[in-house]
Amino acid sequence: MKISIIGAGFVGATTAQRIWEKNLGDVFLYDIVEDMPQGKALDMMESAPLLGVESKIVGTNRFEDCQNSDIFIITSGLARQPGMSRDDLLNRNAEIVSGIAENIQRFSQDSIIIVVSNPVDVLTYLMAYKTKFPKNRVMGMAGVLDSARFRYFIAEELGIAPQEVQAMVLGGHGDEMVPLSRFATVSGVGIEHFLPREKIDQLIKRTREGGAEIVKLLKKGSAYYAPSAAIMEMVESIVKDQKRLLPCSAWCEGQYGIHDQYVGVPVILGKNGIEKIVELPLTGKELGELQESARHLAANIAKLNLSHR
Amino acid sequence: MKISIIGAGFVGATTAQRIWEKNLGDVFLYDIVEDMPQGKALDMMESAPLLGVESKIVGTNRFEDCQNSDIFIITSGLARQPGMSRDDLLNRNAEIVSGIAENIQRFSQDSIIIVVSNPVDVLTYLMAYKTKFPKNRVMGMAGVLDSARFRYFIAEELGIAPQEVQAMVLGGHGDEMVPLSRFATVSGVGIEHFLPREKIDQLIKRTREGGAEIVKLLKKGSAYYAPSAAIMEMVESIVKDQKRLLPCSAWCEGQYGIHDQYVGVPVILGKNGIEKIVELPLTGKELGELQESARHLAANIAKLNLSHR
Amino acid sequence: MKISIIGAGFVGATTAQRIWEKNLGDVFLYDIVEDMPQGKALDMMESAPLLGVESKIVGTNRFEDCQNSDIFIITSGLARQPGMSRDDLLNRNAEIVSGIAENIQRFSQDSIIIVVSNPVDVLTYLMAYKTKFPKNRVMGMAGVLDSARFRYFIAEELGIAPQEVQAMVLGGHGDEMVPLSRFATVSGVGIEHFLPREKIDQLIKRTREGGAEIVKLLKKGSAYYAPSAAIMEMVESIVKDQKRLLPCSAWCEGQYGIHDQYVGVPVILGKNGIEKIVELPLTGKELGELQESARHLAANIAKLNLSHR
Amino acid sequence: MKISIIGAGFVGATTAQRIWEKNLGDVFLYDIVEDMPQGKALDMMESAPLLGVESKIVGTNRFEDCQNSDIFIITSGLARQPGMSRDDLLNRNAEIVSGIAENIQRFSQDSIIIVVSNPVDVLTYLMAYKTKFPKNRVMGMAGVLDSARFRYFIAEELGIAPQEVQAMVLGGHGDEMVPLSRFATVSGVGIEHFLPREKIDQLIKRTREGGAEIVKLLKKGSAYYAPSAAIMEMVESIVKDQKRLLPCSAWCEGQYGIHDQYVGVPVILGKNGIEKIVELPLTGKELGELQESARHLAANIAKLNLSHR
Repeated sequence: MKISIIGAGFVGATTAQRIWEKNLGDVFLYDIVEDMPQGKALDMMESAPLLGVESKIVGTNRFEDCQNSDIFIITSGLARQPGMSRDDLLNRNAEIVSGIAENIQRFSQDSIIIVVSNPVDVLTYLMAYKTKFPKNRVMGMAGVLDSARFRYFIAEELGIAPQEVQAMVLGGHGDEMVPLSRFATVSGVGIEHFLPREKIDQLIKRTREGGAEIVKLLKKGSAYYAPSAAIMEMVESIVKDQKRLLPCSAWCEGQYGIHDQYVGVPVILGKNGIEKIVELPLTGKELGELQESARHLAANIAKLNLSHR
Repeated sequence: MKISIIGAGFVGATTAQRIWEKNLGDVFLYDIVEDMPQGKALDMMESAPLLGVESKIVGTNRFEDCQNSDIFIITSGLARQPGMSRDDLLNRNAEIVSGIAENIQRFSQDSIIIVVSNPVDVLTYLMAYKTKFPKNRVMGMAGVLDSARFRYFIAEELGIAPQEVQAMVLGGHGDEMVPLSRFATVSGVGIEHFLPREKIDQLIKRTREGGAEIVKLLKKGSAYYAPSAAIMEMVESIVKDQKRLLPCSAWCEGQYGIHDQYVGVPVILGKNGIEKIVELPLTGKELGELQESARHLAANIAKLNLSHR
Repeated sequence: MKISIIGAGFVGATTAQRIWEKNLGDVFLYDIVEDMPQGKALDMMESAPLLGVESKIVGTNRFEDCQNSDIFIITSGLARQPGMSRDDLLNRNAEIVSGIAENIQRFSQDSIIIVVSNPVDVLTYLMAYKTKFPKNRVMGMAGVLDSARFRYFIAEELGIAPQEVQAMVLGGHGDEMVPLSRFATVSGVGIEHFLPREKIDQLIKRTREGGAEIVKLLKKGSAYYAPSAAIMEMVESIVKDQKRLLPCSAWCEGQYGIHDQYVGVPVILGKNGIEKIVELPLTGKELGELQESARHLAANIAKLNLSHR
Repeated sequence: MKISIIGAGFVGATTAQRIWEKNLGDVFLYDIVEDMPQGKALDMMESAPLLGVESKIVGTNRFEDCQNSDIFIITSGLARQPGMSRDDLLNRNAEIVSGIAENIQRFSQDSIIIVVSNPVDVLTYLMAYKTKFPKNRVMGMAGVLDSARFRYFIAEELGIAPQEVQAMVLGGHGDEMVPLSRFATVSGVGIEHFLPREKIDQLIKRTREGGAEIVKLLKKGSAYYAPSAAIMEMVESIVKDQKRLLPCSAWCEGQYGIHDQYVGVPVILGKNGIEKIVELPLTGKELGELQESARHLAANIAKLNLSHR
């Protein structure tokens, strides 16, 4: 298994660390900054005798080294700065992602691509558009992270182990995300049996603003520990063909009444990438929020001015 | 188990990540930079549902929160910059470590302290001097890292799993380290049965310059993936009372002919800290190198102008 | 942490293996059969260099060695044979459990006791009666196993990873168990969105008969791999104070309309044992089944002829 | 990766448990006893939701199900009973292994075969003879187990973590094994620096009689926890291409002065099976013992009356 991570900043490098330490495959860590990915990779390799890792990790400035990767993880792009909205990043990062798409399209026709750069739903659309890859092999990471935050906030509130809480956040990554509290459970039991409505609403609000909360604390830079864990969850489900049910930015062709667009929905993730979109029985209100989120994303995609002939 | 990490830079934060993810105890991550340790800790906590971690991690700017920790890990201090020798750091970091020592001495009389800040052997001496703690509860981290690098270089050369190589690096951390190739083995078989002498000498040279190699690649900043793994190895041996044989900067009282000084030697690490210094049967040449290394450290300790009345 | 396992048969020995290999504590494996627990313990210890286990495991024929254990796990008693109902075991095993209760009561006043011997709900009652321990420190293992079977059957049917399925089986262990399909979810989404009613009913039936299915296949002996994993889950939640929500045989004092009786209900399991019984919002039908199950158990408890003055 | 285990007794089933729980591949557990392997496999599968295992395990009575396995592990045969020497088992087990060899030879031409049945060195020879497979793909398990026992006895004596002790036991499995105390080390340091000669000799004697010690304690049956861990170590090195240095029963063609025979020697184990025999620089005495052990095995092989035309 060959897994390439494009962008060796904090999200990229920590993702590399996680995937490599879990022995999910050989990792190639690419960045345009000279020597830096090599330095991080060597530092990791030197921890191998202590951690018992057997895979290898290679840092590189040559995109060719990533050729024929089974999986590409795209983390390049500017990180959101304090005061900067996710949408402000659009133009700069679209340019960067386009360049990467060309490189992948040329030499790695069979790869699965996970886009992490923000605004993620829009850039995932762009990646699929540029590579012309089958849509099941191009996806975006957002829902697993947003759900993890929601789950942690619930667990913290209840004083229980975070792993015991299940939850699902759909829609676009950003202000329009749709946390589905109705599907948030503790060992299968809905959280409304444990928490009052106002408290649940507070946790939803905190989840929506979860990225900004970290940015505000760190002051320079944004979150990378939880994002990299979320990416690893997706990669593991693909590499081990776990067929896990995870919320990802996926290409909808009518599901949830959404057409020809990338948006966060629950999918089965396996060795073929997105193997199926799962349609939950949403209420009218939930469905409305999801479709509103999709419309918001569509408006941003329009700004890319992509021709569809 | 309460484990406090002083300094939330790359070494400190990655150490926190490792110790917390391995559920070794509840982690307190302290830094003077406002909000930053809180941001890193929250980001980590949000990965808990995905990683299955059950311990907690708390970021703080209040040293009081670290009170009565079972273990303190001191990572504060300037990192070595390109072109800067380990010794250049001495004065600035001595001042920082003195302040921390006072804080620990006041409120956490029973702690074990692991010093990581550089120059590590000198600052470990300073920490023991300032806290007046029993010497078995104050130690420095260097040999585990240096040995890990030596082990990785050997494994890479032989094309085998890094975990299978055992090796021991003694002496001061820095140019005076003493890699003992005679005790470097693969599953118990000496590496001289697998590698020619010149190659072994090359690997020793690379080990000596291992820190600088990373600094040169990263350009800004120095190693933290392997250092944090080395710290975790020591913490785990203490927390789980593993009584592992690890090279640490330890207080010698005549062992190896070294008196009243901290220097890297093999020790048994358990719940009481350094439970014993193990005296290997060194050749005259090896012993000479180790004592020379100790003399070099003594000269640096002298620069601290500590009174011994 | 000292964990004693009473009975070194297949369930007891495999439980010992799991707890010891996971380093949850030092394990004492007791049996009346001479030398046998010592043999199994030594065999396990000899695997320690390969598995990296650091705890110790001790086999013994002296109950005194188990003195002051933090946790006792009671697996002694006859295993269910082909054709033998769970209830047939009652009298023989009640005698055995009474003897163990006396031993624990005498020398280990602060222990938490997990009863596994069958019929489990009845013998848990007996254990609490004989030791007079606070009820939060005496519990029976059944629901975690029954739920694991239900979860596996659902996962197998859906072709997804078993760990992703949550489910809850309440009531007595045996023919009267109450699998709650309404709380069976995949990542928080109810299984009725994935499976037709008839299929769910089949899986419930298979769960009810899960123990017998294994007995029928093995011909001699009964299940031990899944039971020991279920015990470990409970022990881990206690040892690490995870406060997990797990179905256990617990003392009800009015919860679910059940009074002064042990029956399988969802509890929070932490360092104090059963820290709370969680009352799920059951439908009238579900509640009826649970109370019917409790009545069935009460009838069996009555057969023990315990005096309550 | 498809891994088939032939024989679902204690060694076979515990090996299946270990390999499956470590997710090393899909496991097929074969036995002639009807329903029994299916029962054990189902019991294991029902623990998957609790243990987080994603691979599958299949119990079967049809050898065809094992067709085209990547690895075969042969555990069938009578276990050594109290009072029975390893050699007594020869004839009965040779017959069983011959039958298995034919089955593998017919349908699984590319497999790697690990023989565990006793007397292991002789039956490995027989397996290679019958299948006519390249010798690097047929090997016996003994040295890893014997070494593990030696390592544990050393660690117990020194009061340190077993994983820290390295050691190497060569020669035939049985009374003629050759524990090489000169290569027994703690973190690379020879045990003669820690233990007096008489103590080392006692540990060697105990290692030699390690199998019998367990048999004596268990009274019925022989060791399986440590043997299954040893098999897993070999399988893991092959599956993950770890190229670990492990002592295995391997085909010698002049190495150590031993010709055309299977005997326990250190080998590099990787995806191609035995990738290399490593020739340690033995003393005349050590070499003599190893060759004597080989002569003893040769005498037993002669008893098989195999024709070599």
